[in-house]
Amino acid sequence: MAVYTHIGAEAMAALIAVYEVGDLVSAKGIAEGVSNSNWLIETTGARGFDGKAGGARFILTMYELRIEIGDLPYFLSLLDHLAAHDCPVPRTIHDRDGRLFRRHDGKAIALIEFLPGVSVSEPTVGQARAVGAALARMHLAAADFSGTRANAMGVPEWQRLAGACGQDGLRSIDPLLAALVAREMPVLADRWPDDLPRSVIHADLFPDNVLMLGERVTGLIDFYFACNDLTVYDVAVTHAAWCFADEGRRFRPDLSAALLAGYESLRPLSARERAALPLLARGAAMRFALSRAYDWLNTPPGALVTRKDPMVFARQLAFYADPANASVFG
Amino acid sequence: MAVYTHIGAEAMAALIAVYEVGDLVSAKGIAEGVSNSNWLIETTGARGFDGKAGGARFILTMYELRIEIGDLPYFLSLLDHLAAHDCPVPRTIHDRDGRLFRRHDGKAIALIEFLPGVSVSEPTVGQARAVGAALARMHLAAADFSGTRANAMGVPEWQRLAGACGQDGLRSIDPLLAALVAREMPVLADRWPDDLPRSVIHADLFPDNVLMLGERVTGLIDFYFACNDLTVYDVAVTHAAWCFADEGRRFRPDLSAALLAGYESLRPLSARERAALPLLARGAAMRFALSRAYDWLNTPPGALVTRKDPMVFARQLAFYADPANASVFG
Repeated sequence: MAVYTHIGAEAMAALIAVYEVGDLVSAKGIAEGVSNSNWLIETTGARGFDGKAGGARFILTMYELRIEIGDLPYFLSLLDHLAAHDCPVPRTIHDRDGRLFRRHDGKAIALIEFLPGVSVSEPTVGQARAVGAALARMHLAAADFSGTRANAMGVPEWQRLAGACGQDGLRSIDPLLAALVAREMPVLADRWPDDLPRSVIHADLFPDNVLMLGERVTGLIDFYFACNDLTVYDVAVTHAAWCFADEGRRFRPDLSAALLAGYESLRPLSARERAALPLLARGAAMRFALSRAYDWLNTPPGALVTRKDPMVFARQLAFYADPANASVFG
Repeated sequence: MAVYTHIGAEAMAALIAVYEVGDLVSAKGIAEGVSNSNWLIETTGARGFDGKAGGARFILTMYELRIEIGDLPYFLSLLDHLAAHDCPVPRTIHDRDGRLFRRHDGKAIALIEFLPGVSVSEPTVGQARAVGAALARMHLAAADFSGTRANAMGVPEWQRLAGACGQDGLRSIDPLLAALVAREMPVLADRWPDDLPRSVIHADLFPDNVLMLGERVTGLIDFYFACNDLTVYDVAVTHAAWCFADEGRRFRPDLSAALLAGYESLRPLSARERAALPLLARGAAMRFALSRAYDWLNTPPGALVTRKDPMVFARQLAFYADPANASVFG
């Protein structure tokens, strides 16, 4: 939850006026994102506004932290590319000069479409299947996207995070976490593949970043970890994000099967991609265990941001690393 | 800013289903209110929903703190009463059993209309006039409202807050604050009138609690301090809330004149009400100086809520108490 910056109504109206979206009607700071401020904006739209019926709606994002401004053209033009290829992602609204983002008070801001839908907490089989298919559609649609961005959250970054946490730090969270990281990190670094198909990947497709209405995906959002990397690693991340219940304690084979079937309905995995999935899923679990561990150790209690438990993904890492579970990916 | 409670999409859909407002389409936690959690809710509405055009919108409030549940029927039925009398306030949406509020996880929740408009930061003369008129309309419309609620933020509560802060506490904020409270509190307690016309008052009509489109008031919101008290005290509160700039340092005679003229265009003040205004404005400034001082001393640094500077209203209190400024209210 976060709205870090106050923008008064007059400043907001002036800010919205640089887009061809009509006049400002409403602006509500929304509690989404941990590194940006976001507002749900309503305008009169192109058609006029009678004061009752809904006008046009948008999300205004102010980039506060973490985002490299140099990466914004990649993220924002990717949205346009995917939307033009019928992926359910929010279009970027360009300003009157055609720019994807602007500056306000020294910070970058961007306006994107508002999409309907809610983020599920307890996915159904039908929803997992739909998310798998949406992920595959995104991978296929991005094939001719010209932008490139390296994965800033790849194996070298996990190693850096593990070092920054230190064995003592990890042990202070849970001795099991320290032991798992010590055991798994060399395996991942040694065996991480680099000869599989690559594409744009979302790299963070948790339920929070998917809007749904029933079993229909209405929005894939929050592309701020998107990058070019192994396509099937995105399947592994999404698997880790969707296929466990009870804080990582309970694997859900039904959701797993549905997610993979949905994905393969549009983009069948090659034998080599499938064979790599168990290791890539261990990597995905490591990535989130370590970024959460780092934030856990570096977020003061009582801060604005709720700390997320790294042990959820430590449990999933142990699951994926157990040879008894090798059959999960077929 | 605040969303204290997480409600998953599935629970939210079930919660919305108890109202006759169609199916849940979107729910965004919004950063408004300091003691409640609020969500901007969109539903399919009565007419169906094509996935693009705006459906019906509402604000869902979960009462977390401070609100006495016993007061909710007063606040919520007041909204219905005022809306039925053409005041721009959000109607309360009753559930299928006709209830104004419900329980969810042990907390009270209510669904109210969403209203368009933004809260201005730098009011214009036209906006101040419109707010004055909206306040008078509200007072007149509430004349036949049957509910009653005592003002929990009246003189006795200021005395309690001053005692709870203590002279040392007030001095730790600013020696001028301690001196002002010591000088003014006996005057206010001694001279506070009780023989002026009474009605429902909003008692907290700051710009944050008024939605506007241009110079039109589209919404008076956040009635959680509403109560029955001296009608003209509400004029004094609204005056203190709207007629100063630069953190209470600069009185704006143009806004003051416009606010009072707007009010009197619908409800002229009697000579006795007008004569009482300077003292009541001192009281209004005291009320906000003390509630802010108390929160200042009792809010840990780094907490979710931004502390508001009590000195803004200490300055205004000094202004209102200065005989040289007696002519402000005519």
